Amino acid sequence: MRLNNLGEIGAIKKITQTLDIDSQKIIRGPGEDDCAVVRTNNEKLLFASDMLTRTRHLPKEMPYHNIGWTAVAVNLSDIAAMGGHPLFLTSSIGTPNITKEQLTQLTKGMNECSRKHDSYIVGGDLCQHREIVINCSIIGKPTKNTLYRDGANPQEYLAVTGQVGTAGLAAKTITGKHKLPEKVRKKAFKQLFKPNPRIKEGQYISKNGGTSAIDVSDGLLHSTKQLSNASKIGINIDSSKIPIDPEIKSSAKKNNIDIMELIDIGGDYEILFTTKKPNKIPENASIIGKTKEKQEVTIDHQKIDTTGYDHFKPENPKEN
Amino acid sequence: MRLNNLGEIGAIKKITQTLDIDSQKIIRGPGEDDCAVVRTNNEKLLFASDMLTRTRHLPKEMPYHNIGWTAVAVNLSDIAAMGGHPLFLTSSIGTPNITKEQLTQLTKGMNECSRKHDSYIVGGDLCQHREIVINCSIIGKPTKNTLYRDGANPQEYLAVTGQVGTAGLAAKTITGKHKLPEKVRKKAFKQLFKPNPRIKEGQYISKNGGTSAIDVSDGLLHSTKQLSNASKIGINIDSSKIPIDPEIKSSAKKNNIDIMELIDIGGDYEILFTTKKPNKIPENASIIGKTKEKQEVTIDHQKIDTTGYDHFKPENPKEN
Repeated sequence: MRLNNLGEIGAIKKITQTLDIDSQKIIRGPGEDDCAVVRTNNEKLLFASDMLTRTRHLPKEMPYHNIGWTAVAVNLSDIAAMGGHPLFLTSSIGTPNITKEQLTQLTKGMNECSRKHDSYIVGGDLCQHREIVINCSIIGKPTKNTLYRDGANPQEYLAVTGQVGTAGLAAKTITGKHKLPEKVRKKAFKQLFKPNPRIKEGQYISKNGGTSAIDVSDGLLHSTKQLSNASKIGINIDSSKIPIDPEIKSSAKKNNIDIMELIDIGGDYEILFTTKKPNKIPENASIIGKTKEKQEVTIDHQKIDTTGYDHFKPENPKEN
Repeated sequence: MRLNNLGEIGAIKKITQTLDIDSQKIIRGPGEDDCAVVRTNNEKLLFASDMLTRTRHLPKEMPYHNIGWTAVAVNLSDIAAMGGHPLFLTSSIGTPNITKEQLTQLTKGMNECSRKHDSYIVGGDLCQHREIVINCSIIGKPTKNTLYRDGANPQEYLAVTGQVGTAGLAAKTITGKHKLPEKVRKKAFKQLFKPNPRIKEGQYISKNGGTSAIDVSDGLLHSTKQLSNASKIGINIDSSKIPIDPEIKSSAKKNNIDIMELIDIGGDYEILFTTKKPNKIPENASIIGKTKEKQEVTIDHQKIDTTGYDHFKPENPKEN
């Protein structure tokens, strides 16, 4: 059996089965959450890594500055989804023979994004490769109420920060075959090419009754399913409450792009979370559903099926 | 100007210039040492990353178990070169559509190497890529006397653990064009395909008068030059003292491979260090030289020129 048949989740499961864990030292281990949570001598730390490749994640239209920014942002988003404080990153860069100016733009993008969120690039690696591959790793400080995927209970509220589907529209229309008004195109590509990790929001949620969280980078419905599976509870989403930019929605409709597909493409680095306190959510967040006993994900009480973005299903129509 | 003209060291210098540093929080930053040394709330941590790619670092002859082992070992070696204790690793894997069994072998190799040195894989990332690319990142605990590259003084001793040139012979003869006795071939390829990070030795050195250290993965002479440059001191190596396995040396000679080239190919994950106490070095280590005031690297008091392994000099004859 090969990875394409196993699928990404199956492969990650296979990996975690081969790894030893010491539950005294490792509070959250491989495959469990957006970050690992580990105990060093004196403190708890968040630790995560994300690899981006030109072919899979970094469209050729993406400027070097944005590549650097994004490589850091996706790691910060992992810290945000745990409600933590980012501290330090390493960045390993595999690159073809680019120019000095392109390299400078790349690392300036990394520096800007990390500094914006009070963290620093402290080291890494550099090697030659046939296409750009960047791996950033991050350590962060958890808050007292760390947000895990398995913390949701029935009778809580489901909410999401910002808006979803914006990056999805950019990913879906990147081939240039669709027609988008210039303003909408710019908005969509800004979201895809310069994601804004929700660090402050994550910290706010963790301090104000948040019970579980995940980032929706692999798609809203897919992430909802992950929260549901981890917490062993059900979730119903009210489709009318999903925060989608009206201009994005109308452009999608004009191009015959299904809205439900759009929000499940991923690329929006928003935080999906459950909370006991629907009145104490970040300003930019929206309540979009409720949790329940029966472990299933429904939209408007109809069961749905979603796989989100799966790296090992190249036949998956959602993949770019 | 492109990276091939800039060279690896030039490119790293360029990168570090674009990164902000807070010297209160970051004791050793980008490009300075084998690991970054950072201050979290309550403690100091070592943090490092290494990226390996199939084309550049992982010969096609290398089994998946060894690939996993090596990806972890090179990170452990960074901790060893600082005299530290490894704690936790993340591993990001970019991979083509390999089999479940190959993936299992890969991650079993990672697990075995990390467990052998009392550390754990706690998370990571998985994505599809046209060739195997692995990035491991590691955090570790420094000892009181952390070994930096810039800690050497004149009138100290230069020493190296284990033997050098063994992995170099494997790298040099991997094409199969050279003739090696089976026993020698096995020995050389074991060193190249299953490097043994010198964690215990690093800790011993840090506790027993070690003043500076670096791993020699990029070549013995190249690493000596890096210690010399960082510490702003000179180093003379006594060529007769360089520990090279006699069988490796004789096979190299028979194949007209220059011994000095061999030891500078790299791939031996040994620790090169300076110490005040030549009688308190690890059992497997050898004194190979002395430090001096005048900042230059000499062998038998003759000046040498070495570049070691440079990722961005493909014309470099040392590259495989």
